[in-house]
Amino acid sequence: MEQLTTNNVWMMICTALVFFMHLGFAFLEIGLTRQKNTLNILFKNIFIITTGLLMYAAFGFNLMYPGFAEDALGVFGFAGFGLEAPMVKDSLDLTYNTGYTYWTDFLFQGMFAATAATIVSGAVAERIKILPFMIFTVLYVGFVYPIAGSWKWGEGFLHTLDTPFYDFAGSTLVHSVGGWAALVAVWLLGARIGKFRNGKSQAIPGHNIPLATAGVLILWLGWFGFNGGSVLSADPAGTSLTLVTTCLAAAAGGVVSAIVSTIMYKNLDLTMFLNGILGGLVAITAGADVMSPMDAIIVGSVGGILIVFAVSLVDKLKLDDPVGAIAVHLVCGVWGTLAVGLFGKLASGAQFLSQLIGVGTYAVFCTTTAFIIIFTLKKTMGIRVSEKEEIEGLDTHEHGMSAYPDFRLNEH
Amino acid sequence: MEQLTTNNVWMMICTALVFFMHLGFAFLEIGLTRQKNTLNILFKNIFIITTGLLMYAAFGFNLMYPGFAEDALGVFGFAGFGLEAPMVKDSLDLTYNTGYTYWTDFLFQGMFAATAATIVSGAVAERIKILPFMIFTVLYVGFVYPIAGSWKWGEGFLHTLDTPFYDFAGSTLVHSVGGWAALVAVWLLGARIGKFRNGKSQAIPGHNIPLATAGVLILWLGWFGFNGGSVLSADPAGTSLTLVTTCLAAAAGGVVSAIVSTIMYKNLDLTMFLNGILGGLVAITAGADVMSPMDAIIVGSVGGILIVFAVSLVDKLKLDDPVGAIAVHLVCGVWGTLAVGLFGKLASGAQFLSQLIGVGTYAVFCTTTAFIIIFTLKKTMGIRVSEKEEIEGLDTHEHGMSAYPDFRLNEH
Amino acid sequence: MEQLTTNNVWMMICTALVFFMHLGFAFLEIGLTRQKNTLNILFKNIFIITTGLLMYAAFGFNLMYPGFAEDALGVFGFAGFGLEAPMVKDSLDLTYNTGYTYWTDFLFQGMFAATAATIVSGAVAERIKILPFMIFTVLYVGFVYPIAGSWKWGEGFLHTLDTPFYDFAGSTLVHSVGGWAALVAVWLLGARIGKFRNGKSQAIPGHNIPLATAGVLILWLGWFGFNGGSVLSADPAGTSLTLVTTCLAAAAGGVVSAIVSTIMYKNLDLTMFLNGILGGLVAITAGADVMSPMDAIIVGSVGGILIVFAVSLVDKLKLDDPVGAIAVHLVCGVWGTLAVGLFGKLASGAQFLSQLIGVGTYAVFCTTTAFIIIFTLKKTMGIRVSEKEEIEGLDTHEHGMSAYPDFRLNEH
Repeated sequence: MEQLTTNNVWMMICTALVFFMHLGFAFLEIGLTRQKNTLNILFKNIFIITTGLLMYAAFGFNLMYPGFAEDALGVFGFAGFGLEAPMVKDSLDLTYNTGYTYWTDFLFQGMFAATAATIVSGAVAERIKILPFMIFTVLYVGFVYPIAGSWKWGEGFLHTLDTPFYDFAGSTLVHSVGGWAALVAVWLLGARIGKFRNGKSQAIPGHNIPLATAGVLILWLGWFGFNGGSVLSADPAGTSLTLVTTCLAAAAGGVVSAIVSTIMYKNLDLTMFLNGILGGLVAITAGADVMSPMDAIIVGSVGGILIVFAVSLVDKLKLDDPVGAIAVHLVCGVWGTLAVGLFGKLASGAQFLSQLIGVGTYAVFCTTTAFIIIFTLKKTMGIRVSEKEEIEGLDTHEHGMSAYPDFRLNEH
Repeated sequence: MEQLTTNNVWMMICTALVFFMHLGFAFLEIGLTRQKNTLNILFKNIFIITTGLLMYAAFGFNLMYPGFAEDALGVFGFAGFGLEAPMVKDSLDLTYNTGYTYWTDFLFQGMFAATAATIVSGAVAERIKILPFMIFTVLYVGFVYPIAGSWKWGEGFLHTLDTPFYDFAGSTLVHSVGGWAALVAVWLLGARIGKFRNGKSQAIPGHNIPLATAGVLILWLGWFGFNGGSVLSADPAGTSLTLVTTCLAAAAGGVVSAIVSTIMYKNLDLTMFLNGILGGLVAITAGADVMSPMDAIIVGSVGGILIVFAVSLVDKLKLDDPVGAIAVHLVCGVWGTLAVGLFGKLASGAQFLSQLIGVGTYAVFCTTTAFIIIFTLKKTMGIRVSEKEEIEGLDTHEHGMSAYPDFRLNEH
Repeated sequence: MEQLTTNNVWMMICTALVFFMHLGFAFLEIGLTRQKNTLNILFKNIFIITTGLLMYAAFGFNLMYPGFAEDALGVFGFAGFGLEAPMVKDSLDLTYNTGYTYWTDFLFQGMFAATAATIVSGAVAERIKILPFMIFTVLYVGFVYPIAGSWKWGEGFLHTLDTPFYDFAGSTLVHSVGGWAALVAVWLLGARIGKFRNGKSQAIPGHNIPLATAGVLILWLGWFGFNGGSVLSADPAGTSLTLVTTCLAAAAGGVVSAIVSTIMYKNLDLTMFLNGILGGLVAITAGADVMSPMDAIIVGSVGGILIVFAVSLVDKLKLDDPVGAIAVHLVCGVWGTLAVGLFGKLASGAQFLSQLIGVGTYAVFCTTTAFIIIFTLKKTMGIRVSEKEEIEGLDTHEHGMSAYPDFRLNEH
């Protein structure tokens, strides 16, 4: 009981920190885009966190943790609508888990759920219609994310491999699930007007770098809970090692990204520094509890290198990802997942193979479902705002307001 | 002892989170008002948190928790000036409470105290003179809030009703106490110049929507501590249920408010979405520990509906409340308090009656005291800045500075 | 074990809060300077936290906590490169400390390390070349800070005085270590163009007061961890008293600073209010665990008075410190350290003498090492940007970007 109380305190704090990541994402996304679409992005983010939580309560939690039967395939299960707390007489059954109560379990996982759509939100910013985005969010957060999650965290078929697929806190289950959808969405949506001229990519600078920087620091803070809470208890050795590997990977990712981009572009690029930090964080997430500090620095550093080249590659492919979500969440998410087979306590050929299977499974499922949803939306209601609306800004057209009415602004 | 340590850790974290709400309030208030009054609002908020804490140490804590004698009326008590920690020899007496130490008790309650005046701060923004506002703050935070609080949390007469009045974390004791004063202040102060033209309400858009949005997310985060800490221990069942009901009410309030306002005004209004979240949070606060998740969704949803209509009603009454404080804190505070008699474990006719008695008591006491203070200030030193000052902005006139000197700004 | 778990949870949370202070510093520094140098300041801050952590892992932790032998002088020790966690078989040795694990110990201390350079960052803002600043950071955070720290917290010679020097959480070891370097750097660097005209100091207003205010509130929040975590366990009496003294000193510092500056300058100056809060926080840091609430209010109040006069004195000395770092971190750091000999449980003549010895030791060591580093950089690569660059802004020249490209800005 006493142990449960302490564990549960830690898990509730981690829940709060993961919740706070939504402010981090919001600041990052608006900071790296133009002021004329700020309100629109904020609206989407607020929509995601609120509806995401409600759907997770209504059915998502029970889709993700269905309690697969012994002989089930572990592909799809559903434990019923709504939240049903285990009770002993009139009190909550505290034997549910030694690490947290039923309520904490739900809320911690619920805070994760909304993250997948938030990742997409950044990638499609500045030109997507809000209504289809909201529909996409409902379907992807409500159904795709929890079903995909059940395969590993719900103890589905990827968990029951001979060498179980490993994804500690979601390099794949959260970040690449969001990242694959971002890739599909960006491809189906097309680039922002003016992003590619005469075949050359044009920089469209973000309008508020202080908020983008704050967003990254808030996300880093949130990762204390995202990874620290994924220990699922307050186990002192496990949680504290996880925080150390998380922070060192973040630091290494940032520094390496800054160095590589400075060498390549002869410019001390703050946004690359920031994305490098995020890349390091995403990369360490799959194995934060099984890496040594030195492993973490390597995994984060490779993440930092990958960021620079992935951002460049996405550009070359004429894909327009305003905030670098594909590089950060997809590329580093895949890297971090594979790295579990290469570094740390679990490293082995068999593990690497399982990681590959996991990555491949999510790649196929997420791109397929994202494509079906977004393509259907495109063919029916359309997913892109009009040219006039895009040029004048989504804030005026979709929301009838400006984010900064007292400031004189540049048109572009 | 070990249990105390864990409980006390949780309570200290909640204290920190409630402290952080002051940044949330500050961001929300400046975000929803014009840039020319930004510094003034920030100054007021910083004044409130600092003087609020000092006064609570000097006498507020002992006014609010006087330790009423058995035969006292439970209306007024005072345990003396300053903080007097219970000691055993040279050490703090840890038997004070199993949930927290004397010091944590003081600090947690002290962080709550300043909130009441902060609620008023938003409502009177952009036209109140700063000196009378500071005097009001001292009197209202220093005396009215703790005396009113003693009636329930200090175990005064509302606590000793046959069916005790119930207010878990302050829908009434904090939010409506602030809300009633906001209502009185807004009425005595009059509307901002240009708010009502030819009998019609004019929108005066807030100048920094990203900060307003951040404010709401920070407030939501702070509510993890505001409600979670009101369990007064780290009891795993109680705290985790409270966080779940709190978050679901917030989400429901936001979504419902967005839907209703979109239907009514054909516009995806972010500020209504944000105020709906706050409305849900304020509404659940009175009964967050006695509601089921479904109850919480209902209570939050009704809060979300009320917000839309209350904002409209306040407008029709020609009351000018720039940030919607009356709708959020007063209307949803009253609703949430009454809802304890209608939903959840305590629901009963007798409870509803006690809730009505509580709401009525605070209505009378807070409007009366707020009126006496503000009316006196109005008749003596005046409470409203000059027309010239209001038009040119309080920042220049009261503080000789601008909040954004490097930016080119629109005059309005 | 159970006690360790609770203690370790508290220490990890405090670690997260101290990490978050870096956002506080970043917001404060950019808020109080001009928009044209915003990106540059953010880049420096992100550089400090990332490289600071990596260096602390590589050698800083083992420089600061070398485990001095009994007969060592306690001046310099080094326990080897990298992190070497104590293990029992394959598990972390949890007998390392009853208050936290080895990993938590490292990370908590690592978060502190970067703070020293961040303090300097604010003082030299708007005119220092970024490359020499980065070199300075590496040397000062990597070597000077941990060696200086080892003298007290590493149980070196200041700890083994007959009456040991006392510095609970770093008024001297962190704040004045940063402050002395700030003083030297500001002196060697010279004032910003236009700061002093005809021998008179000119106000150069900060460009974003909301972010500066947020910075201070975030720093205050972070101080819950900075001081609260310096108890090095979750001991309920110690931690909760520390939070109370910390918050009361902050409040008193702010209020007193606001009163004194209003009397002196007939102006309700928000930045003085904010710096007063920081002055109170820095001042209480050396003795937060040995002061009564009343002591804390006195120590904070004196800090608030000192801030006003120190800012004025720095100005009269023609030193240009854009954010008031010398007044806040150096002057109040020295004051708070000496105050341990005058107020609270340790107050005595012998203690005051030890405090003087400590202050003097750090003054000599820090000014000397900072001078050697910065003077060498000045004579070799130069430390100041060109006049053209300074006037046009460091963002464009050093980073090829603007922090606010969508906003129309004033040139100055």
